[in-house]
Amino acid sequence: MPLVVRNTLRTDLAVVDGLAKAGVATVHEAQGRTGLLRADIRPIFRPVRVAGNALTCEVAPGDNWSIHIAVEQAQPGDILVVTPTSPCDDGYLGELLAESLRAHGVRGAVLDVGTRDVVTLTEMGFPVWSKAISAKGTVKETPGNVQTPIVCAGVYIRPGDVIVADDDGVVAVPREQAAAVLEAAQAREANEADKRTRLAAGELGLDLYDMRGRLTDKGLRYVDYADAGDTA
Amino acid sequence: MPLVVRNTLRTDLAVVDGLAKAGVATVHEAQGRTGLLRADIRPIFRPVRVAGNALTCEVAPGDNWSIHIAVEQAQPGDILVVTPTSPCDDGYLGELLAESLRAHGVRGAVLDVGTRDVVTLTEMGFPVWSKAISAKGTVKETPGNVQTPIVCAGVYIRPGDVIVADDDGVVAVPREQAAAVLEAAQAREANEADKRTRLAAGELGLDLYDMRGRLTDKGLRYVDYADAGDTA
Amino acid sequence: MPLVVRNTLRTDLAVVDGLAKAGVATVHEAQGRTGLLRADIRPIFRPVRVAGNALTCEVAPGDNWSIHIAVEQAQPGDILVVTPTSPCDDGYLGELLAESLRAHGVRGAVLDVGTRDVVTLTEMGFPVWSKAISAKGTVKETPGNVQTPIVCAGVYIRPGDVIVADDDGVVAVPREQAAAVLEAAQAREANEADKRTRLAAGELGLDLYDMRGRLTDKGLRYVDYADAGDTA
Amino acid sequence: MPLVVRNTLRTDLAVVDGLAKAGVATVHEAQGRTGLLRADIRPIFRPVRVAGNALTCEVAPGDNWSIHIAVEQAQPGDILVVTPTSPCDDGYLGELLAESLRAHGVRGAVLDVGTRDVVTLTEMGFPVWSKAISAKGTVKETPGNVQTPIVCAGVYIRPGDVIVADDDGVVAVPREQAAAVLEAAQAREANEADKRTRLAAGELGLDLYDMRGRLTDKGLRYVDYADAGDTA
Amino acid sequence: MPLVVRNTLRTDLAVVDGLAKAGVATVHEAQGRTGLLRADIRPIFRPVRVAGNALTCEVAPGDNWSIHIAVEQAQPGDILVVTPTSPCDDGYLGELLAESLRAHGVRGAVLDVGTRDVVTLTEMGFPVWSKAISAKGTVKETPGNVQTPIVCAGVYIRPGDVIVADDDGVVAVPREQAAAVLEAAQAREANEADKRTRLAAGELGLDLYDMRGRLTDKGLRYVDYADAGDTA
Amino acid sequence: MPLVVRNTLRTDLAVVDGLAKAGVATVHEAQGRTGLLRADIRPIFRPVRVAGNALTCEVAPGDNWSIHIAVEQAQPGDILVVTPTSPCDDGYLGELLAESLRAHGVRGAVLDVGTRDVVTLTEMGFPVWSKAISAKGTVKETPGNVQTPIVCAGVYIRPGDVIVADDDGVVAVPREQAAAVLEAAQAREANEADKRTRLAAGELGLDLYDMRGRLTDKGLRYVDYADAGDTA
Repeated sequence: MPLVVRNTLRTDLAVVDGLAKAGVATVHEAQGRTGLLRADIRPIFRPVRVAGNALTCEVAPGDNWSIHIAVEQAQPGDILVVTPTSPCDDGYLGELLAESLRAHGVRGAVLDVGTRDVVTLTEMGFPVWSKAISAKGTVKETPGNVQTPIVCAGVYIRPGDVIVADDDGVVAVPREQAAAVLEAAQAREANEADKRTRLAAGELGLDLYDMRGRLTDKGLRYVDYADAGDTA
Repeated sequence: MPLVVRNTLRTDLAVVDGLAKAGVATVHEAQGRTGLLRADIRPIFRPVRVAGNALTCEVAPGDNWSIHIAVEQAQPGDILVVTPTSPCDDGYLGELLAESLRAHGVRGAVLDVGTRDVVTLTEMGFPVWSKAISAKGTVKETPGNVQTPIVCAGVYIRPGDVIVADDDGVVAVPREQAAAVLEAAQAREANEADKRTRLAAGELGLDLYDMRGRLTDKGLRYVDYADAGDTA
Repeated sequence: MPLVVRNTLRTDLAVVDGLAKAGVATVHEAQGRTGLLRADIRPIFRPVRVAGNALTCEVAPGDNWSIHIAVEQAQPGDILVVTPTSPCDDGYLGELLAESLRAHGVRGAVLDVGTRDVVTLTEMGFPVWSKAISAKGTVKETPGNVQTPIVCAGVYIRPGDVIVADDDGVVAVPREQAAAVLEAAQAREANEADKRTRLAAGELGLDLYDMRGRLTDKGLRYVDYADAGDTA
Repeated sequence: MPLVVRNTLRTDLAVVDGLAKAGVATVHEAQGRTGLLRADIRPIFRPVRVAGNALTCEVAPGDNWSIHIAVEQAQPGDILVVTPTSPCDDGYLGELLAESLRAHGVRGAVLDVGTRDVVTLTEMGFPVWSKAISAKGTVKETPGNVQTPIVCAGVYIRPGDVIVADDDGVVAVPREQAAAVLEAAQAREANEADKRTRLAAGELGLDLYDMRGRLTDKGLRYVDYADAGDTA
Repeated sequence: MPLVVRNTLRTDLAVVDGLAKAGVATVHEAQGRTGLLRADIRPIFRPVRVAGNALTCEVAPGDNWSIHIAVEQAQPGDILVVTPTSPCDDGYLGELLAESLRAHGVRGAVLDVGTRDVVTLTEMGFPVWSKAISAKGTVKETPGNVQTPIVCAGVYIRPGDVIVADDDGVVAVPREQAAAVLEAAQAREANEADKRTRLAAGELGLDLYDMRGRLTDKGLRYVDYADAGDTA
Repeated sequence: MPLVVRNTLRTDLAVVDGLAKAGVATVHEAQGRTGLLRADIRPIFRPVRVAGNALTCEVAPGDNWSIHIAVEQAQPGDILVVTPTSPCDDGYLGELLAESLRAHGVRGAVLDVGTRDVVTLTEMGFPVWSKAISAKGTVKETPGNVQTPIVCAGVYIRPGDVIVADDDGVVAVPREQAAAVLEAAQAREANEADKRTRLAAGELGLDLYDMRGRLTDKGLRYVDYADAGDTA
């Protein structure tokens, strides 16, 4: 029996927006390399960067009824997150649903299924990350759960967890950890700027990260081409 | 023994051009959700939209000889449609063949194989939908059928069926149904414009499509997060 | 035991730059249709064209330590070529490594793994061909060989072989053959320009390439649609 | 609107059974290397060999309602052939449907979707070729066409075309050509038996098929390893 | 920082063993078509059927260190469940680890990675479901979490959830629901036996499931082949 | 211009046969985890184990002419190794070629393409590892190199390198290293037998491999479920 959960928790938008600025790669590192969705979930246009509260729903294969149900539960600052009960590349979301989602303040969508009307979605500036682009529409026969915890593209996501998405992919941050991850991400960024300057000046990572000793311990050997014989 | 069929039927270009305006997603819906090619057939540049009469040919794996034969059968307004006798990602079509096809009025190509020279094809504005991009050229040893019915990317296509292709993918319309599908597509578009306005104003799909009763029949339940317990 | 080979051979940059101008499809034909990497190695931005000396390294799955070692062996005009010891889509190369490689004169990277920070890499104009885009970072626990012969995306590549890469893909040219391949590529280009002019004027490939006799030998038959019966 | 066509044509079972004896590889050759389904349609148990008249149906993704409709149209000697309107790996056919199909004389099933209950199907000796094995069941909300022409796994198949299936895969023979293909297949088999004896005695294919002249024409060169230098 | 959780909850083995008897397809239906792992997780030998308490661990790509840590947490009746932090087909589990797991009462393993030594594992009768078979061994450099909740092959699994696995695939049952699911599964089985008898006697599913009215409502039409014209 | 190299080097069959006994997983470890072919190259029947000298050839897509040329170069104890110039799943090798290869002492075949007639090959006991099973035959139009170095399924292989293949996959050993690898493999086997006994008796890998200190260094923490809170 399909279930819709109302009045779920959400993460403060100030934290959400801070995570958007950090970007997916930094957020992923900052929370201990967890929460990244499968790499085949790709944006329909680039460059793009957005974050929001997960508005979750489950869909049956070839059936997007749940998304219509989800719109009613949307709040400004949400990102729709859709997972199918079995893999499907059909186009679950097109211009009409995008218009409706945007009217309710939804900032974008992450779909482990396909999307369509990508020209219009691009013109609208409504960002979608999906597994496929397909003109194939869907039926409305089998509703699924809305605003319950789901697994989307390999990651466990609850309503109100933070979704950060850009050209590199999509990462989910559990809502309880969002503030701490933001802090860690900002610290990381400061640190990276300095490293980038030093590397741009020609300093080697081997020295910057003090790797030479550990490499020797691992048995790394250097040999000249002239002396390498068959091995080179 | 390979066969070339001359003087095949074609669809009136006024109908073809009308279908182009409607676009792939609308045409696909308008003909009862049939005729869509596999979703991995993707355009080499975007945005793009075109329609034409199918100019069909079969190719052996790694062999594009049939395409040279097909050029002679081309008429203005055609779209080349190529299917391999076994799957192959090689680059069957490059700048020379594109130049030749264009000289004979062909508007684009749909390949269930690979394409190459994509920088030049993009500069020429010659649209190609293909399964892969690959610099690998092909031989000319095994000719295949030209202008016979084929299966391309999962769809049965006869010469003169209408091919509509855009950012969302590729759909084929049987020539006998083309005029009726055009009419249905145009009706659909008028209807969608009104829906889009209402959704943009915040009206819910649940109400616009009168879904609430059917959802209750399906057993959909609403619960508050505070009362949801383990299920959320 | 991982090995780094120093002072490996390289191809003269005048030859390398000549091959860049010819482009991947032409170079591949010019060397007898060999040396092309798998077609799923795709550029992160387009259009793009570059050539360089292969700077090779092997990486463990989820581990990019070797790339840091490789930077020290780089010389201006190199292209980094990375192969994993088992398939992996993680993001092995991001903005910091790209900055470091560029500081040492490296012109781009070809990865049979994933890349990340693609917005920044695009802003930097640092071209990368990779199997995937993924925000997932890597560890530094298991070094691999640097500047030894490797197999990357199906092709055997030695340090100093020439890598040519553009929108069509990536091809490797053995360093001993580079000068001869350049000459053959340039001859090909002159020849193609003439053919393109004739095809643009409407001349058929069937005539230009003198194919009609061979097609008759292969049993090709022409039939009119009106006479084709069931076969069409 | 879904359609069921009754009283479709069928191929004589004497011809069907003759084709079964010849097997898929021989039948495929005998009809000019056409009609072979995609290679990822694999049998759930081996060894196995069967032929029958195609009993066709289309299914929606995740929905097997059409198969129930198809059973009523079955006749002894049929093989069920199922194609989805979009790709799906769910388990569309299990022990109950197999029992029902068998009760109506159906000899097996070819599915461009998934199957389940494979232990029971194996115990029953009911052969199924499918794209996947999956325990995931299906709903009954969207009926599709039954006994109309379909494209299944890349091949156009009409009710009453002959399906031949064994360990090597599945091939479809148009009903009008079935008798002629059977004759060609039987001629081929006689011919192959003689060749096999000669090859088993050590005669080379180069001589048996008289290939040496054509290979010289193609420029084939022989060189001794001692003289081959870098090329070997 | 990797974490090992000791003394996690487990499901009563009487319930576990009851679920094993029901099998994957029935259990999946009985819990509302949830909990099924991706269909590409396949057994290394068939037929096979087993159930146990999930003993969970996360592994780095190409690194099986966590599995060694997990053995110490094993209890009789467990099934090892392994998920990688990024996709990997390497052979994480071979005869030595299988011997060790068996010595601690573990009944089998479910791996969203590869396995190896499959001849020996088959001789031992130690069942493994995996995404690949690969001889490639792994390193021990990066430990991961053991006995924490994970996502494996698309399903959220906690230690002590019930894993049921057979020829059809693998399903996970949350430990709180295990007893209720067992009851529902047993009810289902009784019901199916009766249906199977009736279908074997030739009764149609259309009648047994009372589908004819609903099909008429959906617009299903019957037509004779002789009257079907172009549509057939 | 295709090339056949005669009188290439081979590895002593005593060494070859010793490597067969060790098996793929052990040989792969014994030579430093190198030389393993892609994991999708699978045997057509199981269990199976064989080793031989590589008899290499390159084939064009959909064209097996080179294999006929290779038979003439075969010597007893060889294993045929086939790589395509672009990916292809067609059935390049069937019962006739297998009969011919066997007549010349060839022990099996490793194909980065498809195979067919698998029932007959199984009855003959002629082992084949391939990427696909397909009834689709091939043409004889484009010969390729025979007995030159090739890349097959990601590994660089020269004529006379040792191919070891079993249920776990396929590994290649460079002929110069074959004797040393055999020695290392035999040492490994002795060592593993002892470990297996100790693990079977319940000793933990954590102790047997002395891992506890290194795990503490990596920051591994143990916590009781009762104290784990949200993390478990």
